This record gives sequence, C-alpha cells and structure tokens, in this order.
Amino acid sequence: MVSTSIQGIIFSIIAAQPILVIGFSGPLLVFEEAFYSFCKSQDIEYIVGRIWVGMWLILIVIIIVAVEGSFLVKFISRFTQEIFSILISLIFIYETFNKLIKIFKAHPLVLNYDHLNISLDNPFHILVTEHSVLDHHGNLTIHEIERAYPNTALLSICLMLGCFFIAYFLRHFKNGHYLPGLIRRLIGDFGVPIAIFLMIAIDFNIKDVYTQKLVVPKGIKVTNPKVRGWFINPMGENKPFPIWMMGACCVPAVLVFILIFLESQITTLIVSKPERKMVKGSGFHFDLLLLVTMGGIASIFGVPWLSAATVRSVTHANALTVMSKGPKPEIEKVIEQRISGIIVAIMVGASIFMEPILKMIPMTALFGIFLYMGITSLSGIQMWDRMLLLITPKKYHPAEAYATRVKTMKMHLFTAVQLVCLGLLWVVKMSAFSLALPFVLILTIPLRMFMTGTIFTPLEMKCLDADDAKVTFEEEPGVDVYDECPLP
Amino acid sequence: MVSTSIQGIIFSIIAAQPILVIGFSGPLLVFEEAFYSFCKSQDIEYIVGRIWVGMWLILIVIIIVAVEGSFLVKFISRFTQEIFSILISLIFIYETFNKLIKIFKAHPLVLNYDHLNISLDNPFHILVTEHSVLDHHGNLTIHEIERAYPNTALLSICLMLGCFFIAYFLRHFKNGHYLPGLIRRLIGDFGVPIAIFLMIAIDFNIKDVYTQKLVVPKGIKVTNPKVRGWFINPMGENKPFPIWMMGACCVPAVLVFILIFLESQITTLIVSKPERKMVKGSGFHFDLLLLVTMGGIASIFGVPWLSAATVRSVTHANALTVMSKGPKPEIEKVIEQRISGIIVAIMVGASIFMEPILKMIPMTALFGIFLYMGITSLSGIQMWDRMLLLITPKKYHPAEAYATRVKTMKMHLFTAVQLVCLGLLWVVKMSAFSLALPFVLILTIPLRMFMTGTIFTPLEMKCLDADDAKVTFEEEPGVDVYDECPLP
Repeated sequence: MVSTSIQGIIFSIIAAQPILVIGFSGPLLVFEEAFYSFCKSQDIEYIVGRIWVGMWLILIVIIIVAVEGSFLVKFISRFTQEIFSILISLIFIYETFNKLIKIFKAHPLVLNYDHLNISLDNPFHILVTEHSVLDHHGNLTIHEIERAYPNTALLSICLMLGCFFIAYFLRHFKNGHYLPGLIRRLIGDFGVPIAIFLMIAIDFNIKDVYTQKLVVPKGIKVTNPKVRGWFINPMGENKPFPIWMMGACCVPAVLVFILIFLESQITTLIVSKPERKMVKGSGFHFDLLLLVTMGGIASIFGVPWLSAATVRSVTHANALTVMSKGPKPEIEKVIEQRISGIIVAIMVGASIFMEPILKMIPMTALFGIFLYMGITSLSGIQMWDRMLLLITPKKYHPAEAYATRVKTMKMHLFTAVQLVCLGLLWVVKMSAFSLALPFVLILTIPLRMFMTGTIFTPLEMKCLDADDAKVTFEEEPGVDVYDECPLP
Repeated sequence: MVSTSIQGIIFSIIAAQPILVIGFSGPLLVFEEAFYSFCKSQDIEYIVGRIWVGMWLILIVIIIVAVEGSFLVKFISRFTQEIFSILISLIFIYETFNKLIKIFKAHPLVLNYDHLNISLDNPFHILVTEHSVLDHHGNLTIHEIERAYPNTALLSICLMLGCFFIAYFLRHFKNGHYLPGLIRRLIGDFGVPIAIFLMIAIDFNIKDVYTQKLVVPKGIKVTNPKVRGWFINPMGENKPFPIWMMGACCVPAVLVFILIFLESQITTLIVSKPERKMVKGSGFHFDLLLLVTMGGIASIFGVPWLSAATVRSVTHANALTVMSKGPKPEIEKVIEQRISGIIVAIMVGASIFMEPILKMIPMTALFGIFLYMGITSLSGIQMWDRMLLLITPKKYHPAEAYATRVKTMKMHLFTAVQLVCLGLLWVVKMSAFSLALPFVLILTIPLRMFMTGTIFTPLEMKCLDADDAKVTFEEEPGVDVYDECPLP
C-alpha cells in the first residue's frame, strides 16, 4: 500500500500520460510467487534477490528506451495476449478454490472436534491451519498449531460464495432497469464494497464460529518488522547473497520486464484510442522508463514494483469522459488532468490507517472477490467468447469478423490451438519451472507466425487475430480489418 | 401419493377435459394447515373433521352444478387472482426460511457442542429438533429429543441455496444459446431433478455431518400406521366427534370449494384457450363434479382432495402441442388423448416403491426447490411486474395496456391497493384466524367493484384488470381490451 501510494503520486505528477493508473497486477503476482518458490528451493533470500532483479530492470529499461524498443510490441498479437489473460483469470479462480480446500483440510467436517484436537499433543496427528510466519531466514514456516473448529469450513464457503454472488448480482443490477439511473450505477459501481461489507456484517454477528481475518499492519510498518526493516541490504540480510545470483537475476528481470512492458503498452493503447479524442498525447517510452525505474528503486525498500493496471486505467478514463447528449451519445472530451490520479494514490495511502476496519474483513469474503474478478474478467476476452462458440449452434454465432468471415471449423481450430497453448502454460505454471512462464508465453509468437500462411491464410489470421484497440503498429493503421476479411 | 395416483387415473379416464393434470396445490396446503391448527386449538380430531368437510363439499358441488354456477367465476377478476397468486408465492418463500431458522435453532453455531448436549439431561435447557410424531390424539407432539450437531445448520443452508441456484441457473440455461437445442431443453426441463440429484451426491459424500432426510413410507401404507388405518371413522377415531362440528364443517367446506373452484376454473380457461385449436371442448361442470366428489370420498380414507394444477396442466398441454414449421411457428394441433395423463398418474403411484432413493434426499434440498418454485412463479404474475415498475424509471415501462393507456400514477395506485390487500391477507394468514383467508380474499371482489367508477374509470380498470387468458365471461368476448383502452 505504501508502494502503490507513493509511486502513484509520483507517476500522476510527472508521467506523460497521467490518465494511467498504476498498481500491482495479476501477472506480477504470478511472477512474484514463482520467484519466491524458486528462491526458497535454492535457499536464497527472496527479498534480496528482488533488489538485483530491480537493478537489472533499470538497466534493461534504459537499453530498450534508448533503442526506441516499443516497436517490439507489434509481435505480441491478440493471440498471445488472450492466452495470457485467460491464464490469469484461471489462476485467480484456481487459487480461490485451492485456499478453500486448505480451510476444509484444517477444519474438517466431523461430528466430534475434541477427538481431533486431543491429538494436538500427539506429534503424528497434528492439524495445522495456514497461519504461518516468516522465520529468521525470511522463509515461510508453519508456526502456529491451531485447533480444528466446527462450522468454520462451511461458514467460509458461505461467506465466499455469498460475497461472489452479491457482487455478481449487483454488477448485473447496474445494467438493469430498476431504480433511477444514478442510484443504480452507484449501487453497481460499489457492488464489491457492498458485498464485502455485508459479509463483514454476517461474520461479525456469528460470534461463535472462527474465521480467518485479513491481517493488516497497524500504521506504516513493514509486513514483518521482526525480520526486516525498511532498507534491504543488497549483499544479503541474514546470510551473504551468492555472487553468481547477482548476475543470474538478469533472467527473472527480463521476465518481469516483459510483463510490465506488455501490460503497460496494452493499457496505454486502450486508454488513448482515437475515439476518446484526447488532446494530450501519450509518451510511452518516458512512462515506461519512469515506471520501471521507480519499481527498481522500490525493490531496495522491499516493496513491490508496479505496472499500468488495465482495468483500473480504463475505468479512470471512462469516469473522466464527457459524453454528448442526445439519442446516440458520443465522446465529447476527456477531462485530462493530474489531480484525480493523485487523489486516488493518496486515498490508497490513507487506507493504511483504516486497520480497525480492515482487520474485520474475513479472508474468505476476499476469496469471493478474487473469484468474482477471475470470472468477470473472462467476459471481455474474445478467446473466451470463441471457447463458448465451441458449444454454441452456428445460428447464434455473433456478427463479428472472426465468426462470419472465417469458416466455422477454421475458427474452432484457431480456438483449439489457443486452448492447447493455454494447457501447456498451465502445466508449466503448476510445475517446478513456473518462473519460465513468460518465456513459454513468448514461444506463442513464433507459433502464430508459423501458422500464418500454413494452417490459416493471412486474411483468415487477420480476422481471427484482429487487434481490439484498433490502434496497431502495422504499416497501414487506417485500414479497418473488417473490410479486408474475405467472405468464406 | 396414493391419492394423486388413483384420482389421477380415474380423472384421466372419464374427465371431459383429460388434458388437465390434477394434484395437490399450494392454496389447498394453506387451507389444510389452517384447518389443522384450528382443529388442534379446538381439541377436535382433524382427520375426522376432514370427512365432514368432504361430505359438505359433495353437497356444495351438486348444488353449484345444478344451478350451472360457473357464471360466478366472472366476479373473480385478475385483481383478486393476482393477490392470491403472490400470497401463495410469498408463503412458499416464507416457509422455506422459516424451516431454515428452525434448523439453526436446533443446531446452533457454537464452538463446543458437548456443552450443549450435556444439558440434554437438564429439563430446563433441552434442545429439540423438529423430528416430531403424531400422538394418539392425532396431534403433532415433540417426541424425540435430539443432539445439536456441528456443521448441520450451515450444510443445510448450503444444500438449500445450492439446489436453488442450480435449478435457477439451468432454467436460464434453457433459454440461452449454448449446446444444441434438444440437449439444452432437456437439461433445462430436468433442471430441478438435476439440482436435487447433485445435492444428494454432495450430502452423501459428507458422511460426518447430520442432515435431516425426506421421510417416505416403505411401500403402500398410511403416514403413521400406529395411529390410524386406511378407513377413518366419521364418528371419531379416538374420541366422539362433536355433533355441532358436523354441521359447522360446512364453513370450511365452502372455503375449500372456493379454492378448488377458483384454481380449476382458471386452469381450464388457460388450457383450452382458442389459440390452442383444440378439437374436443371442455366440460367444466362435469369435471368439477368429478373432482370434488372424488375429493370428498378421498377424505373418508384420510387422503387429500385435489384440484386442477395450473402449472402442471399447462406444461402437459404444451408438451402435447404440435407446432408448424417455419420462421413464425404457430400451433398446428394438440394431440388430445387420455393416455399421457394415465401414464403420469401411474408413475406418481410407482414412485411409492422408490423409497430407497427418495429417503436419500436431504430435506433442505427440497426447501431449495420450494424457494425456486416460490420465486419463479412470481415472474408470470402481472401484479409482480407492476410492483417492479414501482422502482423502474418510466422510460423502461413495457408497451402493455396497463402501462401505456393508464396514467403512471394511477397504475402505481392500483398496485398499491393490491399491495395493501396482500398485506392484510398476510396478517390474517399469520394470525389465529388463518382459516378465514378465502373469505377475506373474496372481500377484494366488492373492493374492486367499489373502486371502478370512483377511484378508477371503467376504461382504466379494463386496462389494469384485463384478463390474461383473453377468454372471459364478459358480454363482448371478441373485443380486444387493448383497443378499448384510452390513451392517457
């Protein structure tokens, strides 16, 4: 929260495109998890390794900006982006249920809990919850041995699904016809906080059931003050950091850079699409330099690096957009300024002092929100739409180029190839080589190139793999893809 | 089940309109509950009282048929029908949550269940579940004193809401675009059994949590063979039945008759509407005579009387309807026969021997289905649509006569009057006078007559209170209500 607030304020003040909202995103979370597992398996201090990744990051961004490297993005087509987006959604959904299963294992459904808890004294039958702490080496260890409680597992699933369904219902409610528009949109926009609040109320009123709560530090301090301070020693905190690893950190640095580059580039394209009629242009190279440099410096303090957050940035831009009145409203202008971004960043910082409220939130209600985010983010992805077309009769296919200008079987084949790639990425993610995920993702680029002209004609590929934002780095930016696609 | 099967077979063989499906319906359930409470409070044998109600029923139906009494139905307009329909839905929904609260009281959410169950020996702190049996007087008494179990209450709510949401989702799935039409409709039509089956599977796999199961007799026998046999003594089973009550039973008989008359009449109208192009006409008086006489005789055996079941009959008629091919399918004909009705009735009887499967059904899954039925049956009621219009901005109001030809405030006033009537009926239902419910319902008929010409003009009333089936007993049956309604 400290990192998001401070970096957000700096970015809003000096960035070339202050409409962007920066934050910690799903892909970065996957990377941090993978890098953490890797460090743990190699007995290396993760928090120190991050500094070296950060230093390499700064070096990489300077080189890329020096050679005006953003042209590289044109190789990353929708084909690759969509596989990645669905992977992120799947990870969100998977993690939710994974955590729920852990709760069921810690608090099983039995008739007599005393029998279970008596065996706490017996070292061969200990039951432990996921309450864990960092030990002196900075590694997570199981510390507290907790009792198994009745009703905990089922209340957790109720809070999770309750939170999910309420947030989901309010999202649909927003697009419905009930209540005047302003109140309806307000309820819809605050659907997630409303859902969390209701779950807090339920959890608070059920006093005799144990549920795990959100752990928040009191005031500004690091997550675990016993183990580290605000400044991380790049030579190692508790043991010397291996020299070879300082160089080897350039590999994960390339991976993080790919993630930040990809997400920030796509976000900039979507936010500054021509329909929005923005007056101020974007400065992609400057913003990338700023973002990655701030991230590199952040790693010295042991706080996360950030990227431009797609959903938050688009929501920000939409909120600032003024529509013309009339039956067919068009975008009139966008109120371009730096104030709103600064206010958002300050409010993120202020929430640090809301610990008395935040610590009342049951963790499982947040799992419900993760599930909500995973499922709702699927709906905007064309590959997901095409996956649903696999089980949709042809007469209901949409009037989109990918469905009308390409033979149905060819479209299904394209979807199937993406599904195979997704499956492979999932296997990599679940394996010991999860750190290699960005590399495997990049392999989909030559695959797409290989398929163009062999399995799919270039025109078919243009329809199936058309850019969403319609702002491409192609030679003919003015040509509408739809007009070029042949009828089947 | 014996009653439904035998009466169903007889009705299908000799009824004038064998497309009707007869069964035990919501309004009859409300009556039986009210009559049971009344008998209990007066210390009268309920099962014997039903015989006298049955005898009076036969007398009433003979009189009504002799004077061709079905003209009476024209007084019962949509205004009254809708209030009654919503009341039934509300009762369904209320009962579901009421039963859930009972489970939470019997199995509270506490940390230590042994503490609770130790007090079973202490008469001042007994915890009892709703496992109850009929005593020698035929009254329900709390019999078994059961332990409070962990996880039971929360698993019950999970099974109930799980069953509700799956059935609800599959209902929507049926109207969606996924999977080929035949498979989609099949899944949609069997949504309720699929939902129940899934809940059985979940409940079966959670071995160490107690849930109450459906109680089904093994083979053909009465519900409680200890207390009564197949033949009820009209003079009293365990004590003499009071003479004055034999005469007084004509009052509840009138109430039951109103219910059966109302529901059967409406069902016949809907099933035999002209669009369906049925060749064989209906014989309302004959069917009513048959139905009520069978019901009266059934009461001697202590089994329920039945009425024509609206939803089941319409589903039956629709299943037999042959549509013409083409872009605008129209009804071609209805396969009118007696076989399908007989098969349905025989299968109801056959399910008596499915006790090994039925006894696996957790009761709370059925509560979920009651909730589903309560909520889904709301959607077909115009009064419910108008209640939603109370919170819908005017621009989204539908292009229906009641919304376009009447001033919005007048429409809302009409809805408000109905809501007040509904509230009054609810108060009566919850009070000690719940048996008087049909009488209070009938009072809405003079209220509607009073409002016509005073608060609402006759034309406004025609738009607001238009008959759904468009087969009315009015003088000008050919006139479309819509054409007559004035623009506001």
